[in-house]
Amino acid sequence: MTNRVFLYDTTLRDGAQTSGVDFSLRDKQLIAAELAAFGLDYLECGWPGANPLDDAFFEGLPAEKTAQAKIVAFGMTRRLDTAAEDDAQVQALLRSRADAVCLVGKTWDFHVDVALHISLAENIKLIESTVKAAADAGKEVLFDAEHFFDGYAANPAYALECVEAAYKSGARWVVLCDTNGGTLPHQVFDIVTKIQERIPGANLGIHCHNDTENAVANSLAAVRAGARQIQGTFNGLGERCGNANLASIIPTLMLKMGFETGIAPAQLQQISLLSRRIDDRINRPHNRHAAYVGESAFTHKGGLHISAVLKNPLSYEHIDPALVGNARKILVSDQAGKSALVERLQGLNVALPTEPARLNDLLARIKELEFEGYAFENADASFVLLAEQVLRALPPFFTLKHFRVIDEKTVTPAGGIETASSAAVRVSVDGTDYTAETTGNGPVNALDAALRDVLLPLFPALKDVSLIDYKVRILTPHDGTKAVTRVLIETRDADGRLWTTVGVSSNVIDASCKAVEDALRYKLLRSQKAG
Amino acid sequence: MTNRVFLYDTTLRDGAQTSGVDFSLRDKQLIAAELAAFGLDYLECGWPGANPLDDAFFEGLPAEKTAQAKIVAFGMTRRLDTAAEDDAQVQALLRSRADAVCLVGKTWDFHVDVALHISLAENIKLIESTVKAAADAGKEVLFDAEHFFDGYAANPAYALECVEAAYKSGARWVVLCDTNGGTLPHQVFDIVTKIQERIPGANLGIHCHNDTENAVANSLAAVRAGARQIQGTFNGLGERCGNANLASIIPTLMLKMGFETGIAPAQLQQISLLSRRIDDRINRPHNRHAAYVGESAFTHKGGLHISAVLKNPLSYEHIDPALVGNARKILVSDQAGKSALVERLQGLNVALPTEPARLNDLLARIKELEFEGYAFENADASFVLLAEQVLRALPPFFTLKHFRVIDEKTVTPAGGIETASSAAVRVSVDGTDYTAETTGNGPVNALDAALRDVLLPLFPALKDVSLIDYKVRILTPHDGTKAVTRVLIETRDADGRLWTTVGVSSNVIDASCKAVEDALRYKLLRSQKAG
Repeated sequence: MTNRVFLYDTTLRDGAQTSGVDFSLRDKQLIAAELAAFGLDYLECGWPGANPLDDAFFEGLPAEKTAQAKIVAFGMTRRLDTAAEDDAQVQALLRSRADAVCLVGKTWDFHVDVALHISLAENIKLIESTVKAAADAGKEVLFDAEHFFDGYAANPAYALECVEAAYKSGARWVVLCDTNGGTLPHQVFDIVTKIQERIPGANLGIHCHNDTENAVANSLAAVRAGARQIQGTFNGLGERCGNANLASIIPTLMLKMGFETGIAPAQLQQISLLSRRIDDRINRPHNRHAAYVGESAFTHKGGLHISAVLKNPLSYEHIDPALVGNARKILVSDQAGKSALVERLQGLNVALPTEPARLNDLLARIKELEFEGYAFENADASFVLLAEQVLRALPPFFTLKHFRVIDEKTVTPAGGIETASSAAVRVSVDGTDYTAETTGNGPVNALDAALRDVLLPLFPALKDVSLIDYKVRILTPHDGTKAVTRVLIETRDADGRLWTTVGVSSNVIDASCKAVEDALRYKLLRSQKAG
Repeated sequence: MTNRVFLYDTTLRDGAQTSGVDFSLRDKQLIAAELAAFGLDYLECGWPGANPLDDAFFEGLPAEKTAQAKIVAFGMTRRLDTAAEDDAQVQALLRSRADAVCLVGKTWDFHVDVALHISLAENIKLIESTVKAAADAGKEVLFDAEHFFDGYAANPAYALECVEAAYKSGARWVVLCDTNGGTLPHQVFDIVTKIQERIPGANLGIHCHNDTENAVANSLAAVRAGARQIQGTFNGLGERCGNANLASIIPTLMLKMGFETGIAPAQLQQISLLSRRIDDRINRPHNRHAAYVGESAFTHKGGLHISAVLKNPLSYEHIDPALVGNARKILVSDQAGKSALVERLQGLNVALPTEPARLNDLLARIKELEFEGYAFENADASFVLLAEQVLRALPPFFTLKHFRVIDEKTVTPAGGIETASSAAVRVSVDGTDYTAETTGNGPVNALDAALRDVLLPLFPALKDVSLIDYKVRILTPHDGTKAVTRVLIETRDADGRLWTTVGVSSNVIDASCKAVEDALRYKLLRSQKAG
């Protein structure tokens, strides 16, 4: 049995079913390029003929294949009343520029009956003829056996007949799908073992969903039983509870189970970054607790753990985080703090000071601010501004000398409700004071608008800078409405650059204002450096 | 082999290691009460003697045991140079009001060496004497075998000797811990099978971490191999990648694997709500894709799926969502809504209307408000107010006809910062308008104070009503500062009663104000009913 496991990514097809996720064409193209560069074997990128977005994606593929990864078009077996040659859906697949075609078909007798309303024998014919047509058209063919595990439980002979028909008709891969996600790892292991009496493991794939939080274990169980292809998505994107998470599966396969994949060991160090970039591109918060790739995956909080980890990382780490491009995080005092600080400054391209004592000043300032409730871990831009200010007396660009925000709500005699928010600011730039007053949709929006009114004429770089994410966290919630508030704001410019800033105050408006100010200042700092 | 699996929850101890999670004493007490009512067997609630919070928790326990759940104090084996009788840490455990004591000890020779710097034989003595002292003190004893799987891989004879020493010294349970989270399900299965040559499965527990996204599968593998206790946390809280997620494990054990637990099948229907309430209490967004309990766990997006699901839910659902108190979500109208509504009203002691048609009005109003961003799941008090208003034309008690909130911040010429928040309100009570104007620590605090200035003289029942928790969530973060904001406020009165209200608006001040108004109105409603 070969030791090579093939990795099949369906982030851009099954992952698109995630509630709240909506890929643009450019998202798809950029993510596909990153996945291909990483070393995945197959990229299922959509369903040509099903929607204009997927059509555009496949039409935009280069005529000549360049990457190692095979691009896969997803579709389904032909309709009963039409030959494969005349079935528009099938023909769209075969005409596409995809290297391979993945055909989903029924293998559960119950579904053949209630969903297709055709006979069991007719369904077998659909599978055979569609697979054959695709193979004849020169495509590599995969057969996705929908509901295979439920089908096998209900009628094993028929489920086997279906997948064997696909295999004998020319499918390179028969992929066993746990479509409803209800199968458990030991069941997957037993069934995949059994199937190999009919189809070699080297031609079997596995496709799992996470409805019992076992999608990763199910995928690994199938490979241990002999299957040699895993289908999954990055970060477990997918309908309901998601698909099997490749970001967890790949390191386990390579680092713990001794399997080979198309990914070079050195390339595996890109997986943390890749996982975060995909979430970033679709504006989804990255799971900081994700296995291997999460920000907290190697963070040590308990005191006992820390001293042991410092003596020997193996004490409390199952792998070296560098192998997956992640990093140990230890929450300790000055000694470790300073080297971590230097590492972070270098990572953010902040020049180190010529006087090393300045680093102590910065460390002290960070601790003061953290005590007030600041957290710079997720606010790189505020961190850079603070560092530049302490280490090199960064010019402030502008000083907000005064703001006044008014929120008003009135119930009219007729019972209607009128709300109004307005903000007035006085801002000093190079010794001159400027004022502006605007209204807005809520107090923070009004304040943001007023600041821009003053600053845009003076700093044209701020054009096209837009706030795209706004998060509020209450830090001491048990003081009721006197709680301290931390606001994180994410901002984007016209070049697609993203940065995050933070503000803290007992007043939510003031906290928001600080984060907005930093967001604008960071853009000015970058423009200054670029100029 | 018994079919009964014991469930051990460590949300309040190991879960407290989650980065960003910070339980208050009240959080711990309330969460413990909810977990106990749910039917869990053991609740590990902290480490008496380790910090003032945990001391206060254990000191606050009732002298007489009331719930089925056993409260467990966590601690470690004694120090080498001190007898158990003289070891302050051990004695704090034994003196505590806990029913059981969980002692963590080393079983990996490497750790005995690098962390404890003692001989292997000495470590065995620590285990034996500490377990014996706890058993002699009348506590049920659990031994948490730290790093057991790594230890077993490195030196199986020694790892076995450690756990056998604990078992023979009187530990009711020997819990095998995958402390670093790197062990895979098939390895867990093999090792747990093997250990039973020495310790019966009925005395074995499993404690897994999610560093390879296999903590659930590892826990289930141990039970399949014969272990009869699972340790985990709700929502997978815990250090790094978290602990094994009980919210996923429990339904699988009960619905798919035929095991019995202390949880009645009808009680299992509370698991979705319980899971969400725990996250809510610690102001953590609930994972909408969580297995079984997530908002999207039974959401059908694909059109093909929906028609099949409507024909027969089994087509695309691995279990009936009602079994875990979750609900199918498809983008069509929901018959189940009305019966769920009646159930909830009865649970909250809201009298049902004499005209059943009023229930439709309430259902329609709830849907409208949910569309705006309201969520009543965790805001019982706002839900009751809404129901009373729609079903029975609840008197409004007071109407806030106008508010104006001013926030001002000034940088003085000397560089000092002055902030001020003030609020003015006009409130109508029984046809008379009253006004007040106050300052506060932040805009919401000022508004709250102004409302009370008007209302307290008119409604003495509002005396001693205090806001104790305040949470802000941004619902449409991708609109930047124009996002819709949902505020949840928890309030307490002098009798210790707690209630939660909700407000939604694109203006954070307005959202907060609505939640504050509801908080006060709910108190007035209760007083009226009591009077």
